[in-house]
This record gives sequence, C-alpha cells and structure tokens, in this order.
Amino acid sequence: MATVKLIQYEDATPEVQAVFDDIKAARKVEDVNNFWKALANQPDNLKRVWQNVKEVMGAGALDPMTKELIYIAVSIMNSCDYCTHTHTAAAKSKGMTDAQYQELLSVIALASTTNAYANGLKVPLD
Amino acid sequence: MATVKLIQYEDATPEVQAVFDDIKAARKVEDVNNFWKALANQPDNLKRVWQNVKEVMGAGALDPMTKELIYIAVSIMNSCDYCTHTHTAAAKSKGMTDAQYQELLSVIALASTTNAYANGLKVPLD
Amino acid sequence: MATVKLIQYEDATPEVQAVFDDIKAARKVEDVNNFWKALANQPDNLKRVWQNVKEVMGAGALDPMTKELIYIAVSIMNSCDYCTHTHTAAAKSKGMTDAQYQELLSVIALASTTNAYANGLKVPLD
Amino acid sequence: MATVKLIQYEDATPEVQAVFDDIKAARKVEDVNNFWKALANQPDNLKRVWQNVKEVMGAGALDPMTKELIYIAVSIMNSCDYCTHTHTAAAKSKGMTDAQYQELLSVIALASTTNAYANGLKVPLD
Amino acid sequence: MATVKLIQYEDATPEVQAVFDDIKAARKVEDVNNFWKALANQPDNLKRVWQNVKEVMGAGALDPMTKELIYIAVSIMNSCDYCTHTHTAAAKSKGMTDAQYQELLSVIALASTTNAYANGLKVPLD
Amino acid sequence: MATVKLIQYEDATPEVQAVFDDIKAARKVEDVNNFWKALANQPDNLKRVWQNVKEVMGAGALDPMTKELIYIAVSIMNSCDYCTHTHTAAAKSKGMTDAQYQELLSVIALASTTNAYANGLKVPLD
Repeated sequence: MATVKLIQYEDATPEVQAVFDDIKAARKVEDVNNFWKALANQPDNLKRVWQNVKEVMGAGALDPMTKELIYIAVSIMNSCDYCTHTHTAAAKSKGMTDAQYQELLSVIALASTTNAYANGLKVPLD
Repeated sequence: MATVKLIQYEDATPEVQAVFDDIKAARKVEDVNNFWKALANQPDNLKRVWQNVKEVMGAGALDPMTKELIYIAVSIMNSCDYCTHTHTAAAKSKGMTDAQYQELLSVIALASTTNAYANGLKVPLD
Repeated sequence: MATVKLIQYEDATPEVQAVFDDIKAARKVEDVNNFWKALANQPDNLKRVWQNVKEVMGAGALDPMTKELIYIAVSIMNSCDYCTHTHTAAAKSKGMTDAQYQELLSVIALASTTNAYANGLKVPLD
Repeated sequence: MATVKLIQYEDATPEVQAVFDDIKAARKVEDVNNFWKALANQPDNLKRVWQNVKEVMGAGALDPMTKELIYIAVSIMNSCDYCTHTHTAAAKSKGMTDAQYQELLSVIALASTTNAYANGLKVPLD
Repeated sequence: MATVKLIQYEDATPEVQAVFDDIKAARKVEDVNNFWKALANQPDNLKRVWQNVKEVMGAGALDPMTKELIYIAVSIMNSCDYCTHTHTAAAKSKGMTDAQYQELLSVIALASTTNAYANGLKVPLD
Repeated sequence: MATVKLIQYEDATPEVQAVFDDIKAARKVEDVNNFWKALANQPDNLKRVWQNVKEVMGAGALDPMTKELIYIAVSIMNSCDYCTHTHTAAAKSKGMTDAQYQELLSVIALASTTNAYANGLKVPLD
C-alpha cells in the first residue's frame, strides 16, 4: 500500500525544521522518526502533536518508563504496529527489561480476559 | 438489563467458598467483589480466573501500582466500566494520586491520537 | 440521554407495517423489538437491514443457535449492550443453556487473552 | 518489525519441554505453533496460558468446532491476524466447511452492522 | 459509579476561568459543557485539549458540519456515549438534519460490515 | 498468510457476472475490486453486500465525498487496511484534496483523544 510521503529535514521548510530541531534536542537523537516526517506534510499538525507529546510525556507525576508502558498498552489495543514498535524501543531506552515487557503483555492479556467476562456478564458495580 | 446472578458466600459450595477465602486472605478484604460472585456460577471459571489474577498481578518485575495503571488503560480501551471502576479503586489503594490518575488518562488520550495518525497515514517502520 | 423515537405499529406507514408484519410472522412474535421501531424512522433502512437479517440468520450451513452465539460474541466485542441483550435472549429461545453461555464467555475471554499476547509479541505466522 | 525470539524444543529447558510435550500429545501434532514458542520466553506464561487453553477449549457444553468459530470471530474483532489464521486452520481440521466459514463471516459482518445502528441510535432495551 | 468532580466557573482559578471564557466566547454559549469542567481538575490538560479542539475543529479544508459527522462516527466506534451525545447536538446546531443523521449511521453500519468481510477474508490490495 | 481465492470475471457464473457488470456500470470501471472477487465465492453474499453498498452510498442526504470520509474514519477505527486504502482512493476520485485528508485524520485523532478522556473520567451527560 502506498504510504504517506516522508518529509526529510533537508527538504523541509524552516518552520518544519524548527520542530525537527526541537524533537532532536529533546530526545538527543540524530534524526526524527518517520512519524514526524509523515506529520510534516501539514506543519500545523506537526507542531500541535509535538507540543502535546512534549507536555504529556515530560516529567510529571508518573515516571517516564511507566508512561511508555501505558503507551504500549494503548497502542496494542488500537492495533497500531508502528506505535507499538517505536514505544517499545522508547521503553527499552528508558530501562524496560525483557521480564518487564513480558509482564506488561501478561497484564494486558489478563485485563482483556476479565474485561470480556465483566462486559459479558454485566457485573453490577460494587 | 437483567444482570448475572451473584453467588453470596453463605449460598456457595465449599469449593467456591475456598476460592472466596483465598481472595479475601490475599486482598485482606471482608468480602469479594461482585466480579467473583458472578464468576462463581461456574466454579471452574472462578478458580481459573482467580489463579490467573494471582499469578499475573502478584509480585514481579513491575510494581503493583504500575500493573494497576496498565489494567485501567486496557479496561478503558475495552469500554469495561466495571473493570475501570474496580481497578481505579485498586490503584488508589496502592497509592495512586489524583495527579497520577489524570496523567494516566492524558497518556491514554495522547496515545489514542498518535495511534490514529500513524494508522491513518500508514507510517512505515523506522 | 435522549434516545431515538420509536415508531409503533399503529403510527407506521403501510410500508413500515408490511416489514413489521414480515418480522412478526418470521419470528412468531406479537410485536417487533425496539431495534426495528427505531430503524423505522427511515423505512429504507428498516427494509434493507431486515432483508439482511433474514438472509444471513436463516437456515444455512451453520445452525441457528451457533449463529446467535457468534452474534453475541461480536456484540460484546463492539460493546453493544442492546444487541448482547437481545441476542442472548434469542440464543436462549433457541436452546442455549446457562452452561453454554458461560462457556461462550470463557472462549471470548480466552481468545481476548491470546489475541493480546499474539499482537503484542508479533508472533510470525507458522 | 523485529518479532519475538522463538524457543525451539531442542533449546528449551525441561520445564518448557514438558509443556511442549503436553501440547503435542493433546493435539497430536509433531511440533507446537510459533505462539507457544514465543510464550516460552517466560515459562510461567507458557504454562498458565496453555492450562487456560486446555480447560476452556476442551470437551464441554459447546462442541469443539463451535468454540473455534467463536474464537475466530473474537480474533477478527481484535485484528489478530495470527490468531485468525491459526484458529481458521483449527476449525477446518475440526470439520469447518468453506460454506460454514463464509457464513461465519456473514454473521460477524451483519452483527457489526446492527451493533453500529443500535449503538448509534441508543435503542432502549425492550 | 462515582464520576469526576466538575469544576464550576465560580469555584475555578483565574487560569481555568480564562479558558472557560475563551470556550464560551468561541461557542457563544452561557456555560461550558461538563467535559471541560471535568478536565479543569488539571488546568494543563484543560488548556491543551481546548487548544487542540480550537485548532482542529476551526475553519479549514472541511466544513464544520462534516467534521462533526466524522467526530460522531469515531465516538460511536469508541463507545463514547458522552461524546456521541454532545457532538450529535453540535452537528444539529450546525444544520445536520434527521435524514443526514440516519444516513451517517447507515454509512457507519455499512462500513462495519465490509470491514468485517475484508478483514476476515484477508482481501489482498488491488 | 493464504488469502481468499479471487473469482475472476471469466471464471464466474452468469449470476456473479451480472453483479460484476452492475458494479462496473455503476462505477464506470473496467474491472471490479478484489473485495468483490473475494465475496463472489458466495454469490448470495456478493449480491446482498453490493445491494447494500448501492443503496447506502448512492445519492442521498449526504454528498458522496462526505460519505467516503465517514467510511475511511470507520475503516481506520476497525483497523481495516484494505478498506482504508480503497475508500481513500474513492474519496480522492470524488475530489478529496490532500489537505482534506490530513484534516480528516486530525479530526479522527482529536476525537480519539477526547473519547479517551470522557470515557476515563466518566463525564456525566450535560
């Protein structure tokens, strides 16, 4: 399937380059992920989504690795292979071990099971 | 809508009571939640699901509160109100603050947004 | 929440009454379910959906109760309480026992678990 | 995308080999599916999930092929290609004909349509 | 189920009141919806989400009513009753007729059917 | 993964050819999409689904391009790559610009975010 055109740094407008520079500085990476190159087709979207990511995934009440675990869980539930892949990489870079990843999957799998029973049985609230 | 019959402790078979006792001891609670009373209509299901919960949610590579956060995320994605409710209560009992809960929701909401973009744009893997 | 207006038989156009009569005859019931009364706001939709139901749920390669079990499974996955309710009633009227219903839920719950593992682990096809 | 490491029988611990042997005996197959080789990275998960599958998919109130049909329906709803594939194969090995498979898909497709109408119209329970 | 605390205008901080004022001015309404009062428990979230809504739902390449129709479709797919309700009201205020709403539901229902067939049959891309 | 057998025009029964002819005439195309060739394994399904598509996607209260936008939104939510692909092509053929497509994705992404907040916060209806 034809996928979206990816905007490379050297072909980007100064406006897009500024966002790319901010992402690279914040994440200490050489180049931005394809996700951002895809969003760059609409600079407004690029800026808005990056602003959201910076605000939500930055330092806060939950530690960064925990946020990545939650991100992975949602991405698996939404069948987003790309997001599952990149956030699994992000979680690993923040210290997630193989045992923690397997345990994450087990919690997702268990919750899916009990969700199905509770929804099917129409269990009344306690 | 008629919901499932809930099996109370005093009406349960010894087999079911033994599982209820195990749940109460493990969780240090006076009575089991409606979920278990609903499952008790089929003692095999009750035993199997509780065994799964004990194994997956017990001590492991991830701390108990993190597991509850993941559980809540999956339950929201599966539109399971009952499970969202009970696991939010469980997370609070394990120390989740209001700020952490709001941040959990923000990560779920953010991931849902980027999942939609990545799935819609068919972003190729990096 | 305000719900859709339900069209009662006595207030319906002859076109809608003809569909209602066909549903009542096919199902040997006194009155049609609210679903049909809701669809009747747009007679074209009513006719088309009923035609689909008649063709798909009628006699075929799978027996009627099995079809209802599949219908319930999909309805639970789609969080459609109304559909889960009515098709559980339909399955019971076609002979579904409590034990079969519990087993249906257990298969749905189990599949949800293994789906989560397979999707999360990206298991390659055999 | 890099997928999970698959544990082959000859590289497995005795604990894992015992589960693999049990799967092979129960299913009368030469080798276990990739799903089990992937789960074997965490022997506890392997044992628990297989135990669940044995209990739920074994002889019961519903016949084995019907259970596979329900399993396929859930797997399609959860966008699990791997699970759809393997359980379609399993259903065929238990006697599912092409006509039955097409009818299964038609029920899933029909239920998805009526679920959408009922959820959108907020049809009140009868 | 206990729901989130709603922050009323008179109890809000000046920071929150400023966002509420902006929403009321943009929408020409007397009071903001409960959604915003719920988000106001975390002023950062309130500001960020409102900023997103303003940017995305404002004048653009698609007309406002079409955007509301898409919003409703997604909300139904995500089983968000609150969002379905409020965006149906918003669409009506922007001119959506009953016939258009019924047609919206019919497209959602039809797409759900063909999605199920295409996913189940694994139709290869043209 | 083995996919469904595609029925080509020259191998089709007269019954199937008649539907193919109707699709080609209605859409002014040389050949039908793989979706229809896949459905043609069961001529009854082919006829019924095409009849539904003709009725729902034809002239009505909503214009054809708006219907395609809604179709794409649902297909993305259902993770149907095939349907997303073909209906994006259909929308383009009906005049959808790149800017409109990006805006469609932004509305889907925004709705997914607010749906998650509203479902997680259990916002009461206004």
